[in-house]
Amino acid sequence: MKALEERILKDGEVLPGHILKVNRFLNHQVDVAFTMEMGEEIARLFKEDRVDKVLTIETSGIPVAFAAAAALKVPMVFAKKNKTSNVNEDVYRATVHSYTHNRDYDVVVSKDVLGAERVLIIDDFLANGCALRGLMEIIGQAGGETVGCVTAIEKGFQGGGDGLRKEGIKVESLAIIDEMTDDALKFRR
Amino acid sequence: MKALEERILKDGEVLPGHILKVNRFLNHQVDVAFTMEMGEEIARLFKEDRVDKVLTIETSGIPVAFAAAAALKVPMVFAKKNKTSNVNEDVYRATVHSYTHNRDYDVVVSKDVLGAERVLIIDDFLANGCALRGLMEIIGQAGGETVGCVTAIEKGFQGGGDGLRKEGIKVESLAIIDEMTDDALKFRR
Repeated sequence: MKALEERILKDGEVLPGHILKVNRFLNHQVDVAFTMEMGEEIARLFKEDRVDKVLTIETSGIPVAFAAAAALKVPMVFAKKNKTSNVNEDVYRATVHSYTHNRDYDVVVSKDVLGAERVLIIDDFLANGCALRGLMEIIGQAGGETVGCVTAIEKGFQGGGDGLRKEGIKVESLAIIDEMTDDALKFRR
Repeated sequence: MKALEERILKDGEVLPGHILKVNRFLNHQVDVAFTMEMGEEIARLFKEDRVDKVLTIETSGIPVAFAAAAALKVPMVFAKKNKTSNVNEDVYRATVHSYTHNRDYDVVVSKDVLGAERVLIIDDFLANGCALRGLMEIIGQAGGETVGCVTAIEKGFQGGGDGLRKEGIKVESLAIIDEMTDDALKFRR
């Protein structure tokens, strides 16, 4: 999505450690009108896929997922992180490794909001793909089917997206960064 | 908002301890089309107030805040919780007490996404009002002005909203619950 690449170049900031800071329009302040355009683009990419529901993970995936769900006219569910274990809870649960924080965390979704449905997974960033795999595991537990995965920004050089594509999963990212240095970004063509 | 009251009665669930579970349409699964209607209603309530920006707090306030920002055609910022203190960070910070979890947590907003603006605060629930007061403190630190506060569901019997109203703050809630027992809810008229 050309407009997103331009926006990253204009308002993004590269920090040491391959961190791309997009605080000003994507994951702290949110440019709502622009996010709605991203939602329209996601709906276009999956318009033939009979999506029943959009699934994301708190927190920063929620705006893009919400916008896509609005365009697709389906409900959205956001999975919760780090929920304390409670034996009385009726939840699906998967463990995800965070390379950023070098620790594992649990992702949970209540059984009453996810079932045998066709689910599109949406997140803001895709790096190694661990969060997406955790959400796919949860969709499987619910008896559903992962229609595909969409992220706003994929760090192509970290390989998570291509790994999923090799397994036959439809992965679309609105911008894919193949190289990142302190003074240049190279997008995939 | 009559439609929200009806939805609470239809899909909400009252749990012991005055907990209203609205997992199925508001804060876990999100009925996106309905949330967009709530956003339109919020924009109507504040259409004369020259709102520059919407401010909420992660996580479950984000969908309603996003929908309101879309209707008002302004950006949204979501404040972050429990951010580890980092002296290099350029942030506004306030401490909020959570009665639910009986502990304090910090709310932070980066200085580069909030300034001397007219800000509308939005959250999903209003109980004692502590989170709203923390966000008002942050708006003050940024040199901005709190135009008002909106929540989807106010637990009127906990008094937080009326306390803010007595101080002259414009507080609007789309549904106000004045009494809550295991088998009945009474909405404010």
